[in-house]
Amino acid sequence: MAYHLLQRDQRGAARLAQALGNALQVLRHCDLCNAFTEGEICQRCANTQRDRTLLCVVEMPADLAMIEQTHAYNGLYYALMGRLSPLDGIGPRELRLDKLLARVSDGVVEEVILATNFTNEGEATAHMISELLAARGIRTSRLSRGVPVGGELEHTDSGTIAQALIERRAL
Amino acid sequence: MAYHLLQRDQRGAARLAQALGNALQVLRHCDLCNAFTEGEICQRCANTQRDRTLLCVVEMPADLAMIEQTHAYNGLYYALMGRLSPLDGIGPRELRLDKLLARVSDGVVEEVILATNFTNEGEATAHMISELLAARGIRTSRLSRGVPVGGELEHTDSGTIAQALIERRAL
Repeated sequence: MAYHLLQRDQRGAARLAQALGNALQVLRHCDLCNAFTEGEICQRCANTQRDRTLLCVVEMPADLAMIEQTHAYNGLYYALMGRLSPLDGIGPRELRLDKLLARVSDGVVEEVILATNFTNEGEATAHMISELLAARGIRTSRLSRGVPVGGELEHTDSGTIAQALIERRAL
Repeated sequence: MAYHLLQRDQRGAARLAQALGNALQVLRHCDLCNAFTEGEICQRCANTQRDRTLLCVVEMPADLAMIEQTHAYNGLYYALMGRLSPLDGIGPRELRLDKLLARVSDGVVEEVILATNFTNEGEATAHMISELLAARGIRTSRLSRGVPVGGELEHTDSGTIAQALIERRAL
């Protein structure tokens, strides 16, 4: 992309530089969801049509965008802006979990949905947050693990099948 | 494979032809699980170490093999040898669901785990079987749907994320 801009689209490169510089100056973290916004509170958090009793915790704003695309969720979000990663020196303090705990203690949030990734770091992050919230008596849940929609057992890895068996749902 | 056998491995072709002919003569469906076996009851169903109160319903023996590979399941199986597929003229009668109903009514099976695929046909098959079993008061469950193990939200389709949200698990 850099080569293309510098060689074939120098005006585009200048526009991109200006936009990025502008974003750096204007953008800040939303006081409620911690994702990027220009004001104190982002439009999503300010929307009174959304269910304020549900709070979905994601790693990054890109995950938040994926969940919004489903049109299956109408609660609020909290973006951690990362995940626990001891090897990179990112622990609970660097992840500012205290900020999340303050957010969920507003007396309005009734359920925290942990939607971190199902990677090792994402699972560890979800586990740690669930322990912290359980100690405060806040109801937590986790996105279900299992066979993806449209999936065939024959083409699914055995780790996923094992989880889908263990976490099978009563009908 | 056919070209290779006929051109470069004619003895292999003869062996394969004989093995297949032999299998056609010897193999039959197990009286209990409906998968292929040489005797009346297959080794798996005859194994007294397995939990006879659990019955896992799969579409094909290949699905059964996938679940065995996980080493996470120690119950018995029932292979439908197909799935409901109205467009192909396969309804409950062609699928011999009466045979399955007779199998689960042995007084030993306590839970039927529906492990058909998460395709449209597989879901319809699971739905129909669950209705039939509910009418007979037999406990049924379904493999969990959701984000696969190791999966990242950013690379997961929105149908799967929506299901994972709807079927989220309380912690």
